[in-house]
Amino acid sequence: MNKGLLIVVSGPSGCGKGTILAEVLKSGNFYYSVSATTRAPRPGEVDGVNYSFLTKEKFEELINNDGMLEHAFYCGNYYGTPKEQVMKNLENGKDVILEIEVQGALKVMETCPEAVFVFIMPPSVKELRRRLNKRGTESEDVIEKRIAQAISEIKLANKYNYIMVNGELEKAIADLISIINAEKMTRKRAEYLINEVLENA
Amino acid sequence: MNKGLLIVVSGPSGCGKGTILAEVLKSGNFYYSVSATTRAPRPGEVDGVNYSFLTKEKFEELINNDGMLEHAFYCGNYYGTPKEQVMKNLENGKDVILEIEVQGALKVMETCPEAVFVFIMPPSVKELRRRLNKRGTESEDVIEKRIAQAISEIKLANKYNYIMVNGELEKAIADLISIINAEKMTRKRAEYLINEVLENA
Repeated sequence: MNKGLLIVVSGPSGCGKGTILAEVLKSGNFYYSVSATTRAPRPGEVDGVNYSFLTKEKFEELINNDGMLEHAFYCGNYYGTPKEQVMKNLENGKDVILEIEVQGALKVMETCPEAVFVFIMPPSVKELRRRLNKRGTESEDVIEKRIAQAISEIKLANKYNYIMVNGELEKAIADLISIINAEKMTRKRAEYLINEVLENA
Repeated sequence: MNKGLLIVVSGPSGCGKGTILAEVLKSGNFYYSVSATTRAPRPGEVDGVNYSFLTKEKFEELINNDGMLEHAFYCGNYYGTPKEQVMKNLENGKDVILEIEVQGALKVMETCPEAVFVFIMPPSVKELRRRLNKRGTESEDVIEKRIAQAISEIKLANKYNYIMVNGELEKAIADLISIINAEKMTRKRAEYLINEVLENA
């Protein structure tokens, strides 16, 4: 049996990755790994759906027991990816989608170089600012910090295998599905098929 | 302006590439380069649509004037890709799809390494034989020659960037569209977008 494909998606806060991922997850048979964090839930966020909201103590316990695929400390909080379920699903041939902050994704590039890394950008920094303001959950000051963070993250997009722009939601959803679909047909992932086709002569 | 993407599609006779390409061409804004050949048209084939049917003299004249992107001699006939329109369309930013026999595609890999090469396989050699028999245009003897040719071609699929299987037509059409779409988002083709996004701060 083939191992599943590990798809790592990053993008600055406000790029729309959450909305895109929700739709892509509906479109196929994926395991979505919910990130863990020690930050407080935003209004409407549900534990175990948007994030696993952990205490600082519990999070550090996981780090110390090698239970995190990656973790990062960002704006005063831990963010990370619990390892166990990801590995189990990949071994069982199931594709796994991870949404990881850039610093975390860069670490996974080192430990899981066979994964496919996708960076989602907003169409422009101007549009990103508009989206963050529209969300209305954060102060002007926090938004400007997020913009600065976004700019430094976007500068790292060239470390990723694929770079996509979320200008129009429907197109962005189709784009991410295309990437996952096409990646499975790349030579390195599909060349085992050659023998399969030839065997049944 | 960005140059267009050059997409080179190969696959053994009977793999269904013609049908897949016809649908993919309808789905987007491509320039489809009609191959030239000196072989006789099969029933229903139209000059300038399926192939440009050329005399041996005319074909050799093009070869001698460097007017062919590639050409090959196969089963007693020339097959090749006239160069001029391909280059003109790419320069104008238009994506170009070429359907080329394997020997020709291998040559284009050398001269146009920035192109994307897609190999379409039948689900099995058994199924290929069934499809060629069903077509009913060729003798048993010719079909067995085509099968032998197909097997040696399929063994070269691992030279291509992408390998896809045409088991079910609708899926194969979507697969080829995914490849073209995803390829444009690969880092090397999309990283120019990073500056575009950052510029408009």
